[in-house]
Amino acid sequence: MLIVGERINTSRKEIDRAVEERDAAFIRDEARRQVEAGAQVLDVNAGSRVGSELKDLTWLIDVIQDSVSVRLSLDSATPSCLLEAMGRIKQLPMINSTTAERSRFEQMVPVIEEQACEVVALCVDDRGLPGHVHQVLENGEKLVRDLESLGVPRERIYLDPVLRAVSTDSEAGLKALEAIRRIHGSFQGVRTLCGLSNISYALPQRSLLNRTFLALAMEAGLSACLLDPLDTRLMGTWRAATLFMGRDAYCLEYIRAYREGKLPE
Amino acid sequence: MLIVGERINTSRKEIDRAVEERDAAFIRDEARRQVEAGAQVLDVNAGSRVGSELKDLTWLIDVIQDSVSVRLSLDSATPSCLLEAMGRIKQLPMINSTTAERSRFEQMVPVIEEQACEVVALCVDDRGLPGHVHQVLENGEKLVRDLESLGVPRERIYLDPVLRAVSTDSEAGLKALEAIRRIHGSFQGVRTLCGLSNISYALPQRSLLNRTFLALAMEAGLSACLLDPLDTRLMGTWRAATLFMGRDAYCLEYIRAYREGKLPE
Repeated sequence: MLIVGERINTSRKEIDRAVEERDAAFIRDEARRQVEAGAQVLDVNAGSRVGSELKDLTWLIDVIQDSVSVRLSLDSATPSCLLEAMGRIKQLPMINSTTAERSRFEQMVPVIEEQACEVVALCVDDRGLPGHVHQVLENGEKLVRDLESLGVPRERIYLDPVLRAVSTDSEAGLKALEAIRRIHGSFQGVRTLCGLSNISYALPQRSLLNRTFLALAMEAGLSACLLDPLDTRLMGTWRAATLFMGRDAYCLEYIRAYREGKLPE
Repeated sequence: MLIVGERINTSRKEIDRAVEERDAAFIRDEARRQVEAGAQVLDVNAGSRVGSELKDLTWLIDVIQDSVSVRLSLDSATPSCLLEAMGRIKQLPMINSTTAERSRFEQMVPVIEEQACEVVALCVDDRGLPGHVHQVLENGEKLVRDLESLGVPRERIYLDPVLRAVSTDSEAGLKALEAIRRIHGSFQGVRTLCGLSNISYALPQRSLLNRTFLALAMEAGLSACLLDPLDTRLMGTWRAATLFMGRDAYCLEYIRAYREGKLPE
């Protein structure tokens, strides 16, 4: 499963400060530490910087690419920002995100047509957040069809089933796992991605909930996850679950992580 | 999922010492702490006390029942010990265990016929530990048939798929999960039980592996698990996974555990 590091987001105070002061060393360090911890893609989000989002986003992209050689996920609610910024990304960009909302999807068309990219597509339409698995599937079907008609191959589509918090719906975990399973069963080749921390919103000990859900989602087939790679217990769970999924022959990666001091008790 | 506390086992040095010295206070404390941590059944095993197993087992049963009001799992490889000791158990005893090995099963018949009990049945036959899921299922089918013919109702049968260590077979985790799913799919009403720690044998950070596998096994439908309830992180995972399985309405149990200081970070 692909780890997408979520930390470079200006909604976090220390990132906002670093962007404001153009503290490149701080951003480089955030990038480097996430990659060392296991992130294969870094999400970049300057959406909270109203008025300067594009300038800040391009500065962040340049600083990060100067520090690490890793893929980037460009995370913005503003299609024009995505369109302007995506050309600076050296490796195949991940565009985060479109939805099945009519106007939102239409605004994203020029971005998706601009260049080869991976597309994160939230299974949300104009009816709002899906409360049932069948709605996730309906939205997913529409997104796959529309993205394919724009020339995006299935293996570059990441459907996000949009996790609801288990604090607002006791069945949210079960529904999310079923949605992941059914997306993979229904749309051969399409990938899935979740923003992990939504599931634990408004509950105590969120890291415990996040890591437990991560293992379950991996077993359900989750392809990629937006998370904090500096959460050592979470990444330990990722390594343990990778082992249990039969994807770590002879436990070599697990034992190497242990020797590098990366596994928690 | 039923938590079976594994700690009162004379193969653990401190328990052996307490049994040797008839230190009832120590045993009572072990019993009480496991129950407070969430154990619903306590396993009692004096198998390492060769020559005095029966005497030690009956002493343990009396001391534990004097301390806590909880069900007991009588754990012995010696059918005569099980037969003699089970009558002392006040609540419905869990008998751990029989197997599908011909002579072992025959020796267990008088125990199973003695009185109403739950039976843990290891899916092992005379060919040895099953290396494939279909062998687990074959052994399980034979055990269910033979136990039912002795009058044991399905809901009192706990099939143990016999976890192999992931260190000896990279697919052991996947196979165990599939075995649990297929037992529940094939033998309606029958329960499953695992001894959790086998999965992590010979690897570092065993608690990390145990708790990650516990979440996966719960999602696969595991009915009961033999484990150390004093492992706070493991029990935190149990509570989090219970929540994600939709079995904790309004997160009440999770939040109560948090308030009682039982949830790790």
